[in-house]
Amino acid sequence: MTSIDTQASPDKEMLNWGRLIMDGVPYADLAAARDRDVSVSWYDYWMDTAAQYEQAAQSAADTGHRHSAGELFVTASLCAQYAQFLWFGEDRTAGQRRKVELYAKAAPYLDPPAERFNLPIDDATIPGYLRVPKGEGPWPCAVLIGGLESTKEESYRFEELLLARGVATATFDGPGQGEMLVSTPARGDFERYTSRVVDFLVNDSRLDPNRLAVLGRSAGGHYALRSASLDRRFTACVSWGGYVNFENWEGRGPLAKESWRYVSKSADMDEARVFVEKCLDARSVLKELRVPTYFQQGGLDFVPVSQVDVLKQYAVNADLTIVVEPEGDHCCHNLGPRPRLEMVDWVADQLHSAISRE
Amino acid sequence: MTSIDTQASPDKEMLNWGRLIMDGVPYADLAAARDRDVSVSWYDYWMDTAAQYEQAAQSAADTGHRHSAGELFVTASLCAQYAQFLWFGEDRTAGQRRKVELYAKAAPYLDPPAERFNLPIDDATIPGYLRVPKGEGPWPCAVLIGGLESTKEESYRFEELLLARGVATATFDGPGQGEMLVSTPARGDFERYTSRVVDFLVNDSRLDPNRLAVLGRSAGGHYALRSASLDRRFTACVSWGGYVNFENWEGRGPLAKESWRYVSKSADMDEARVFVEKCLDARSVLKELRVPTYFQQGGLDFVPVSQVDVLKQYAVNADLTIVVEPEGDHCCHNLGPRPRLEMVDWVADQLHSAISRE
Repeated sequence: MTSIDTQASPDKEMLNWGRLIMDGVPYADLAAARDRDVSVSWYDYWMDTAAQYEQAAQSAADTGHRHSAGELFVTASLCAQYAQFLWFGEDRTAGQRRKVELYAKAAPYLDPPAERFNLPIDDATIPGYLRVPKGEGPWPCAVLIGGLESTKEESYRFEELLLARGVATATFDGPGQGEMLVSTPARGDFERYTSRVVDFLVNDSRLDPNRLAVLGRSAGGHYALRSASLDRRFTACVSWGGYVNFENWEGRGPLAKESWRYVSKSADMDEARVFVEKCLDARSVLKELRVPTYFQQGGLDFVPVSQVDVLKQYAVNADLTIVVEPEGDHCCHNLGPRPRLEMVDWVADQLHSAISRE
Repeated sequence: MTSIDTQASPDKEMLNWGRLIMDGVPYADLAAARDRDVSVSWYDYWMDTAAQYEQAAQSAADTGHRHSAGELFVTASLCAQYAQFLWFGEDRTAGQRRKVELYAKAAPYLDPPAERFNLPIDDATIPGYLRVPKGEGPWPCAVLIGGLESTKEESYRFEELLLARGVATATFDGPGQGEMLVSTPARGDFERYTSRVVDFLVNDSRLDPNRLAVLGRSAGGHYALRSASLDRRFTACVSWGGYVNFENWEGRGPLAKESWRYVSKSADMDEARVFVEKCLDARSVLKELRVPTYFQQGGLDFVPVSQVDVLKQYAVNADLTIVVEPEGDHCCHNLGPRPRLEMVDWVADQLHSAISRE
């Protein structure tokens, strides 16, 4: 493990209860994590909890209770995710592996099921999941992009909101994320990977190739802006707690900084900082953004709200819907369900009306 | 307002985060309630939050976003519920009225919708909601009964679990509960009211009259045992954190005791205690319980776990499934989703296999 601030620990720095609960971690487990014996590490607590959910899920599956099996395997996967999300040694690798394994177990039990895809690109593979509503399509589809330490497995509850509104979902790990990290560190051309996913989606007859949106969360909100600017097949874009260019490195916590170093495979923090500030900058491509774009910011976020002005300055050809929640933290996780509902309704509106815009 | 322990307040005595969150109150609002300015009362905080959700819900409804309208109106209703649930003066009445009003607004937007029914009985009316899965029936149905201060409006999330498993839901206010309290205080013959609801359900051609379950929570778990014992039309019964007879009056908090006095319209606490101990006693009818029965208890509940032995002693003709969670509090709200999932899977299994048992 590299040297980082020894006072920093995941539960102290980034125990964002709002985020974890909105993503589906049970409150009961967060409370038990908070109250756990001091001898039990954050990592061990959550990995053990994941194992307990896995056992309950397997029991449900074995007795034909597929709804509960899906819900419990997803919960197990989320526990493994949040066990490791700010750990950087052996634990990280083991926790990631468990998260992936547990979500794969959930996938066939979800309703609709999550269909695994593996897309070759260069010498690597993009892993992802596609979920298509029941009934007759073709369906519009939202491509979901995670952030710094969120991956394709954390968007289950958000997917449910889109699916209920008749929107299919495709979520994947790009450079520096989840399963892709081993082969491919974070890069400045994330949009190449998004486009590879779109190549796949437009060949699925259940989906409508003329009604695709891209939606990214946190750093994924930056990737989404790049992807929608440079791939004309998208008809709408959402940046959820994202940014045009990376600012306020100093304002990030020590584990978030270490996480950027880790996913970019930088030798040290200076190199990591140069990477994020130089490579995570969409200003030069934003004039190509020509689709309706929803940009959500929290007034209390460490991402400076001045990014709204940067967006307005450079995305001169896009119809922008700017939502700044004065009391919102990063991604407005602290505000409960309302901001997420407004976002998915906007996406559904864009996609369901897209035909008439053609 | 009657004289009660002035040190008692709803947030101190019964701020059961597990319960509120499992029922659908957003974590964000609980955290904000905890951190609110000392000058703002618990009641005022939640009623104001209810009004904010109502506004967001109405905005969603006005723009054609029916899923969000339903979710947000339900959330508004839950906020009004928990504003007043342990208040006993004018506020209680106003909070109850708002809860009812807000849920009625949610009803048509739910998926499937909640259909209001009003059933005359004696000189009173039983109010309730029926939700029937989409698609071709006839569907099995679970009759849901609330407890001391829970009413027909709080079971939305639980209903969702049953509906996903192909089970319709009917929830109502009985004596001493919600809208019925004005006309009808808590009584010892709750089963009469349940049976009136069953009279209604068996005449709905979308439902299968041979596949009805009754499921009650907390005090409703007692009412469910009575109802299943005395109405032969039920094919399964669940007592969720309930009891055969009321024990451990001393172990109840001051607001819970006051709540029993309030719903039984007793003149004082002594009269309330006599009521619960004398009238909430199903021992004499349990020999008539002849259907599979699920009895869930928490080892840390104020309801004595010895009630399991009482049940076994008296329900000699029923196939009992006893689930005692050693770490569970009242209704096991502190254990997250697993106990609820196991319960609804059991109900669905009983109802879906009921035909073959005929």
